[in-house]
Amino acid sequence: MTAPLSRRSGGRAARVASRAAALSDDIRPVRPGMTGGKFRPLTDAQVDRIHATALLALDEIGLADAPTSGIEIMTAAGARLGDDGRLRFSPALVEDMLAKACRDLTLCGRDPRFDMDLSGQRVHYGTAGAAVHMVDVAGRAYRESTVQDLHDAARIAHVLDNIHFLQRPMVARDITDNREMDLNTIYACCAGTTKHVGTSFSDPSHVAEGLELLHLIAGGEDAWRARPFVSNSNCFVVPPMKFATESCETMESCIRGGMPVLLLSAGMAGATAPSTIAGAIVQAVAECLAGVVYVNAMKPGHPAIFGTWPFGLDLRSGAMTVGSGEQALLSSGCAQMHAFYGLPGGATGGASDSKLPDMQAGWEQMCTNVMAGLSGLNMVYEAAGMHASLLGFCHESLILGDDLIGQALRCVRGIEVDDETLALEQMRDVCLNGPGHYLGTDATLGRMQRDHVYPKLGNRSSPKEWEEKEKPDLLVNATARKDAILNSRSAARFDPATDAAIRARFNIHLPA
Amino acid sequence: MTAPLSRRSGGRAARVASRAAALSDDIRPVRPGMTGGKFRPLTDAQVDRIHATALLALDEIGLADAPTSGIEIMTAAGARLGDDGRLRFSPALVEDMLAKACRDLTLCGRDPRFDMDLSGQRVHYGTAGAAVHMVDVAGRAYRESTVQDLHDAARIAHVLDNIHFLQRPMVARDITDNREMDLNTIYACCAGTTKHVGTSFSDPSHVAEGLELLHLIAGGEDAWRARPFVSNSNCFVVPPMKFATESCETMESCIRGGMPVLLLSAGMAGATAPSTIAGAIVQAVAECLAGVVYVNAMKPGHPAIFGTWPFGLDLRSGAMTVGSGEQALLSSGCAQMHAFYGLPGGATGGASDSKLPDMQAGWEQMCTNVMAGLSGLNMVYEAAGMHASLLGFCHESLILGDDLIGQALRCVRGIEVDDETLALEQMRDVCLNGPGHYLGTDATLGRMQRDHVYPKLGNRSSPKEWEEKEKPDLLVNATARKDAILNSRSAARFDPATDAAIRARFNIHLPA
Repeated sequence: MTAPLSRRSGGRAARVASRAAALSDDIRPVRPGMTGGKFRPLTDAQVDRIHATALLALDEIGLADAPTSGIEIMTAAGARLGDDGRLRFSPALVEDMLAKACRDLTLCGRDPRFDMDLSGQRVHYGTAGAAVHMVDVAGRAYRESTVQDLHDAARIAHVLDNIHFLQRPMVARDITDNREMDLNTIYACCAGTTKHVGTSFSDPSHVAEGLELLHLIAGGEDAWRARPFVSNSNCFVVPPMKFATESCETMESCIRGGMPVLLLSAGMAGATAPSTIAGAIVQAVAECLAGVVYVNAMKPGHPAIFGTWPFGLDLRSGAMTVGSGEQALLSSGCAQMHAFYGLPGGATGGASDSKLPDMQAGWEQMCTNVMAGLSGLNMVYEAAGMHASLLGFCHESLILGDDLIGQALRCVRGIEVDDETLALEQMRDVCLNGPGHYLGTDATLGRMQRDHVYPKLGNRSSPKEWEEKEKPDLLVNATARKDAILNSRSAARFDPATDAAIRARFNIHLPA
Repeated sequence: MTAPLSRRSGGRAARVASRAAALSDDIRPVRPGMTGGKFRPLTDAQVDRIHATALLALDEIGLADAPTSGIEIMTAAGARLGDDGRLRFSPALVEDMLAKACRDLTLCGRDPRFDMDLSGQRVHYGTAGAAVHMVDVAGRAYRESTVQDLHDAARIAHVLDNIHFLQRPMVARDITDNREMDLNTIYACCAGTTKHVGTSFSDPSHVAEGLELLHLIAGGEDAWRARPFVSNSNCFVVPPMKFATESCETMESCIRGGMPVLLLSAGMAGATAPSTIAGAIVQAVAECLAGVVYVNAMKPGHPAIFGTWPFGLDLRSGAMTVGSGEQALLSSGCAQMHAFYGLPGGATGGASDSKLPDMQAGWEQMCTNVMAGLSGLNMVYEAAGMHASLLGFCHESLILGDDLIGQALRCVRGIEVDDETLALEQMRDVCLNGPGHYLGTDATLGRMQRDHVYPKLGNRSSPKEWEEKEKPDLLVNATARKDAILNSRSAARFDPATDAAIRARFNIHLPA
């Protein structure tokens, strides 16, 4: 309604400049692990009904296709194996295993300053997915993703304040051998960032070597087990209500190796899960509860993330869609279920159906990201860089996602209400005794950093300034920042001796 | 995590097609006036503190600069005029006037099917603002806005399902005489849409002729007063805590003329309002409560919208910013205060600081729009088309905003939980007796329209399909839709006799 104010006096400008220096941790306006939960799409009674329905599904329908080892583990704990081969779980068994489950999980970074406390409704954003394409922004084109692309994504994520972890977002398609791909994926991610890394194994037989690599990176098995900085993103079910036999075997190996697991149930609402939001949540919750039984029957309290991860579907085409309002509700409703169980949880948020980082991508990524945060989702996976309904990853979009998530985190932080922020004294001073405005007050300037998230690439200039600066383009600036990051020395690189030891043992595709 | 499904069989494709026809009203997935309120940034205790602090501000600080007429009206009701010229209001006076205030307001469209019920936490989205530039998307340029641009915006808004009202979004800068500009603004808006229109008057002396024009459009004063389809967007205060003398005189004239008023308090947090979110809300609430006293002392129950409308400020530059997380919290917190008072309320949401409809615009517009909706804001003003911190309006962005708001409305609609949506029976059928997926089930197909919002321009195709279709560009497609709308005949045009009568009485700048 009002035009921007004219320029301030030199005195204020100088004070403002003195406050615009780099932020110390205590006055950062947003940080990892802020507490959400003020958006509650479900009433308490609805949460209870979803829980009760999931228990009925486990008791009456159960899950097929558990591996032999899993059947032994779960029937020993009290699960019933039916003549139809399905494992069924009584409500009492589920409740017993919930009581043993790991709570207040901290996911470690290789650098402890990136540790993530997943207790309560603390919110973290990071990458994830299995994109098979890289988005070439300048060329408006898709090409196959490579291990170098993956490593570059890790390096970029490493320096972005609002990207809190790096789960493998894309597949290294230039490595055709799956074993080598899995090992090089770990290398490419960990060599690019000391934030927590999530990864997958395409076959149970790859886990042992993966652990061997992680021991080398950590400086020994004890150091690895003390602070496991890589978790296993594990699609342990094939919805609806079937275990993924081989993935379960992978999970067992990871548990034995001390690796936290993400119990990932990725149904598609309308295809592999009911089309209704409530129904898709019920099924995902039932499947993840089966995972809780599995994990805790095998190793009580093993770190596991409750990964109810239902996706939307465009029923006109049968294609997955991740950027819709329905998707935002799916993930937000799941977050409420995680809080109900008091378990660390994760789901998808922040991915786009758009092929490019355009306006559609912006609205889709914000819708799911901000609602996931407001609902208190512990781990928002696929929060930046994901396009084409998860088929494409984009470095520029990852960088812009840092800005976007910064604003979402500001919303999660919420509104502080106390005598100082209510500002009655300040109003009195300004209106009755003062200059009639709040621009120069100590209260305003003293809070300008800790209260406000300023975009790095988002542009707030007036049309006049924008024209004078030759109309800066958001994507061109994102590409420039990408180049600056990738042209600088990586802070996450392994020390030379470790790197040499790894390369002597494994065929590492990235150049030394 | 999963690639799109392969194409369905012909049988299902045919069934899908039969369900993809135009939607009848009863199965539209979203509609105007859906009920929000599941996002509550403030606790009940915090709401109480904001209310109590606003009452203290009115009692102790009060407002300066009321017009003579306003002083008479408000002191007659019990306000105290101080030696300092400020009007102060006791808590008892405020509570008395709140008890008389209009609730359950319906804002009329010229066509009754566009009436908006503002009771409870029903949410509506529309345009507003006073942009002085049009955004030329193809040319990446800003130029002065004209009355034709304004009329075109009205025509576009008229056909967009998720734009529920048209408040004047930009200024007709090609009309230099303010009186003619005000009258032509009304004409340009009402000739373009039969949805509810909001407008402003640049001088109190223009109101009488504005009403005369509205009587002509309505077919007489009685018809106008029975269904006033234009409201007065009135910046009745100059924050902090001063009445806008002339705007108050305008407001009095509008009230006498039977025109609903939007009591608009547009402080800038950090400049004309405290920089803290809570403080900016306190001051806006105090100012609007003064407006409630003013209106109801003059005419008890006159339709008024509680327009707490605080804006964010970028304290680095002193420029207004409307696309931030802080802005989303400002408007959402205000929505909770409106609900506390039980009054129809409005605030800003959906505007961008970006100069163009790019990714930044998308994330900014969604952040504030979806949070405003989830918080149950009755009227989300500036919800589409606004750029450059309100200095620029963009027709393409308005069209894309329809898609964006559709998704936001889906989120407002929320999650239905009942036996059907919990889908236990369906899960049992699919898993134990059925095909192992939900694609062809009656439950899925039967709900594919009423549960899902499909984008009109947002693209959900795979990279392969996208390339085959020559990489459709979001903005190019928005321009094509704009051209199609503006090249079709307007459904909102006045009948020829009315138009002739208007043109005989007033200097209408738009060609007949």
